[in-house]
Amino acid sequence: MSTAGGSLYLIPNTLDFGTAAEANPIDDVLPASVIRTAARLTHWVAENAKTTRAFLKRVDAVVPLARPLQSLAIVELPRPPKGSSTLPAPDLATLLAPALQGHDLGLISEAGLPAVADPGAALVQAAHAAGIKVIALAGPSSLVLALAASGLNGQSFAFVGYLPVDPSARGARIRELEALSRRASQTQLMIETPYRNEALLGALLAHLQPGTRLSVSCGLTLPDGFTRTDSVQGWKSRPIALPNNVPVVFSLLAG
Amino acid sequence: MSTAGGSLYLIPNTLDFGTAAEANPIDDVLPASVIRTAARLTHWVAENAKTTRAFLKRVDAVVPLARPLQSLAIVELPRPPKGSSTLPAPDLATLLAPALQGHDLGLISEAGLPAVADPGAALVQAAHAAGIKVIALAGPSSLVLALAASGLNGQSFAFVGYLPVDPSARGARIRELEALSRRASQTQLMIETPYRNEALLGALLAHLQPGTRLSVSCGLTLPDGFTRTDSVQGWKSRPIALPNNVPVVFSLLAG
Repeated sequence: MSTAGGSLYLIPNTLDFGTAAEANPIDDVLPASVIRTAARLTHWVAENAKTTRAFLKRVDAVVPLARPLQSLAIVELPRPPKGSSTLPAPDLATLLAPALQGHDLGLISEAGLPAVADPGAALVQAAHAAGIKVIALAGPSSLVLALAASGLNGQSFAFVGYLPVDPSARGARIRELEALSRRASQTQLMIETPYRNEALLGALLAHLQPGTRLSVSCGLTLPDGFTRTDSVQGWKSRPIALPNNVPVVFSLLAG
Repeated sequence: MSTAGGSLYLIPNTLDFGTAAEANPIDDVLPASVIRTAARLTHWVAENAKTTRAFLKRVDAVVPLARPLQSLAIVELPRPPKGSSTLPAPDLATLLAPALQGHDLGLISEAGLPAVADPGAALVQAAHAAGIKVIALAGPSSLVLALAASGLNGQSFAFVGYLPVDPSARGARIRELEALSRRASQTQLMIETPYRNEALLGALLAHLQPGTRLSVSCGLTLPDGFTRTDSVQGWKSRPIALPNNVPVVFSLLAG
């Protein structure tokens, strides 16, 4: 499959973006092989260049970077044009050029695994098309951590991204996901912009059947992180407030 | 949510079960916090007690175990009765007793994250019901690594487990998953028992449309691991043989 040239490494980031835990040592949550690989890469494609430099400073505190931070090539992943989920091919070719020239290339998001609930899949797809070897390194993924901690069905599950913001479209989508979950016994996972966590929880409780199980994973891998799973009825009788500044994964399973 | 008592820790295992890579240091692929937590736990619920002891020997080589291996309480997760996916409640209560008595309890699979494409969800669910705090620790998950490395849609995806073995039921299921993928632009991920890897690849190529993209991730995190993504047509014109002794994740996305 792979020809000569560099590989594309998908480098996991921590899940503490924008929180106080960013002060914690990075080797607590990332395997040593990830840190060693990140320390030697000289070419990067990043969701955000500034946060990538912050990440590399944390890497440097554990394994010294092969080259000074200032000398590394860090290129931001362009956003796809509005209404499209794919990037123009010329942009992708430019981003992949270092790998074709023989440099190993890193792809990194602001949090978690690149290309999972995050930009980057178009670049990975273009790498395959160009014969560049793609290597994903293990690290924290809030989706699978939430699924594992939920106790809901881990043998069949779907991640559906964000729900519509419009209340009536959102309600319809929630009922659709519940029906889908019931039909296939499939756990449905979704995420929300943190300041809308409370609104999404309210909508889920308003539209789901009382017996449907709902799991909320809040700030996973963070010191105050927690997962609560209960029936919709249980959530209603023992309500809790969700923080508005921490990522939350919502999962539901209809019986 | 949580009351006094121990927590249930979901401890990720490596993905090298049954391969030569089991000789490699465990801290290459697991974060330090996972190894420290595993080293201090004295009570375990395991998919398999023997492989858990092998895992703990690898932990001990990095962080000495708090207590001798022989003195640890390692209880196997019973298999659910045939035709059911849930364990009897009395069994679960017995398994959780150490946590209710104040001991932190570990849950571990033979590979990857417990309760994700693996047994354990019933125990996690019972822990929530008993007010036991559930903490999932980050580690390798072949499903998300395969998804990231596939370059297929990571904003919407489903894991559907195993396909039927009967050829005509399998063909029908493949066409159903392709239709579902096309309708929702949702990547569909599945796994197979390793000795049937070739058979599943053959069935996918026989039943999928030529333009559907198919990704095969073979032996992820292992030295010879690779991911190949191509159209069905591309797979047919450039066939490769799959190993029959290494786990493979198959992903498809219909355009």
